[in-house]
Amino acid sequence: MTLPFDRQPSAQQTREKRVFNFSPGPAVLPLPVLEEIQRDLLALPGAGSSVLEISHRSPTFDAILAEAEVNLRELLAVPDDYRVLFLQGGASLQFSMIPINLLRSRDLPASYILTGSWGSKAAVEARREGEVHVAWDGKADNFVRVPDDEELDLPPASAYVHYTSNETIQGVQFRRPPAVGDAPLVCDVSSDFLSGPVDVREFGLLYACAQKNAGPSGVTVVVVSDQVLERCGDELHSMLSYRRHAEKGSRLNTPNVFGVYVFLLVTRWLRDEVGGLEAAAERAAAKSALIYDVLDQGGGEFFVAHAERECRSHMNVTFRLRRPELEEAFVAGAAERDLVSIKGHRSVGGFRISAYNAMPAEGVERLRDYMLEFRKAH
Amino acid sequence: MTLPFDRQPSAQQTREKRVFNFSPGPAVLPLPVLEEIQRDLLALPGAGSSVLEISHRSPTFDAILAEAEVNLRELLAVPDDYRVLFLQGGASLQFSMIPINLLRSRDLPASYILTGSWGSKAAVEARREGEVHVAWDGKADNFVRVPDDEELDLPPASAYVHYTSNETIQGVQFRRPPAVGDAPLVCDVSSDFLSGPVDVREFGLLYACAQKNAGPSGVTVVVVSDQVLERCGDELHSMLSYRRHAEKGSRLNTPNVFGVYVFLLVTRWLRDEVGGLEAAAERAAAKSALIYDVLDQGGGEFFVAHAERECRSHMNVTFRLRRPELEEAFVAGAAERDLVSIKGHRSVGGFRISAYNAMPAEGVERLRDYMLEFRKAH
Repeated sequence: MTLPFDRQPSAQQTREKRVFNFSPGPAVLPLPVLEEIQRDLLALPGAGSSVLEISHRSPTFDAILAEAEVNLRELLAVPDDYRVLFLQGGASLQFSMIPINLLRSRDLPASYILTGSWGSKAAVEARREGEVHVAWDGKADNFVRVPDDEELDLPPASAYVHYTSNETIQGVQFRRPPAVGDAPLVCDVSSDFLSGPVDVREFGLLYACAQKNAGPSGVTVVVVSDQVLERCGDELHSMLSYRRHAEKGSRLNTPNVFGVYVFLLVTRWLRDEVGGLEAAAERAAAKSALIYDVLDQGGGEFFVAHAERECRSHMNVTFRLRRPELEEAFVAGAAERDLVSIKGHRSVGGFRISAYNAMPAEGVERLRDYMLEFRKAH
Repeated sequence: MTLPFDRQPSAQQTREKRVFNFSPGPAVLPLPVLEEIQRDLLALPGAGSSVLEISHRSPTFDAILAEAEVNLRELLAVPDDYRVLFLQGGASLQFSMIPINLLRSRDLPASYILTGSWGSKAAVEARREGEVHVAWDGKADNFVRVPDDEELDLPPASAYVHYTSNETIQGVQFRRPPAVGDAPLVCDVSSDFLSGPVDVREFGLLYACAQKNAGPSGVTVVVVSDQVLERCGDELHSMLSYRRHAEKGSRLNTPNVFGVYVFLLVTRWLRDEVGGLEAAAERAAAKSALIYDVLDQGGGEFFVAHAERECRSHMNVTFRLRRPELEEAFVAGAAERDLVSIKGHRSVGGFRISAYNAMPAEGVERLRDYMLEFRKAH
């Protein structure tokens, strides 16, 4: 058996076969990262204990947390007046923490741009804390695109403007942040985090769960400007207060030590093996183009792309079959080729190919070849 | 080099030395559990992907989550009308979730029994949601004991009564739950969770971070009665609502998949290797007695125990040296013997020996021998 990955681990480590896993998250991780975790699982070098056993106040974790932050600052060019926080609870807890910190007891509305399922969920939670103004809603069009700036209906002032840079379920992605004026721009970057460069200065707050491009589930990264931190409410529950987490350097309580460690290894891999975020963006565009080209070649007669061309996600490619009765056969044939987790979200149907940073081009190529073969056969 | 643990892993797996780690948490895990994690880290049997990569909606995680719950239900004899939740955010987020769900907008006070640092922190967060009545406070006595039932000053009715079964920092432990009448009893069992049997029926809600006896940091276990769930408020933020988490079977959002997996392996180990919670309680009493005996033998002339005899923790043994100038030498000598993380919390000083389920008796024996040797030498 040949392992379908960039690097071949030693025979002893791979009694179990690995497949090409197109899961939208938790998702594929770089094999060298998994190998390093495995190698040091019983005891981190010099620590005498597993990373699962070390105190969050130990010098070992001091070093892990510090390097994780430094690596992220370098990769994203995070300005000095922004804080980096490693939290728990996924993007979903951020849906609540954002309005708790920035909307509660304010006279201004928070504006939400809704381009898919996740942004819509975020707005539901925000309404518990104050007025939510919907600046654009793609639901009537089945979330197939993002708005142009001139389509946004923004009030004269907002506590903040929230949007989702990449909607994982619908596979629509902003190519650049919307122009929203003076209000702090808050962005859920969960599913395209670290897939390409962003200008952090354009944002007041960025947040991402790790389980797409950055690590395992259970750790959430928040990048927030000092200016936004100053606007956060007082007298909040400690664990829900950005300011308290920032004051304590992500150690207000015991963080997800293992999750931060994996995040650190992934950022090293991104820097050293991928070559940074510009290179990651090129890889993502090239990989997703392999599938989009197949969708386009047929003119929609066999495969039907979900998202409009100019908003297509480089992370999650969504499409369906013109003849839905072939779906089962399509999934079964893919599984025979070790291509798994390709089904679309139950709310959209069809298929979703998530090809995050750690998905090798070889996996996407194999899927592309299978799609061509399947179309020919049917 | 001989590995100081119950089981010897293969030579290849242990290039790094392991020490006896008395950290209060994150803390030592069972070596067989670490070995199994290591073995399957690149691909779980039959899954084709690492546990770090599998979807939280996959059949593999369905099986992990289901067995984790079943094992906990069996170990603790959890009644059918109690829910088991796997959440994130540690005990600290529970300090807030409890009053958000059970105190907000109520006419009744919540009563708190304060026997150490953690219970006191919990009360601070509860005050953000309503009236907190302190039923007992050991602070004036430096938190050296727990109250007798007749010392509790309980109001005629409480939204709930909260206490901390084992105060990790001070090393004081309740031998049995306090008698509090009809109010739901809410207990932070973080640091003695799964260290012995409890009668779940006595509680309305139990909660524990995993990183003491049950797994890595980043996963929190809540056991809550249906009766208490019915009392929880409506219109709460989804991620802060026990009822919403219960409705979604701990998959309201992506849980800490890896953390639940490790929890599952630890519960298997507890059942199969330790022999259940009665056996765990016997081991804990015997291990902690090794240290307490040394403290008592000297009549407090050299080592001074922190907690009063009848409240001494079987998990965290706290003491100081009569001559504090010897502290540094005591730590250094311990480290030479691979006995690490023995310093007390900065708020208490002195020493704290945390000997959770996974700490082998051999580690505690070596520490006991060292203490005797050190006393003799000084």
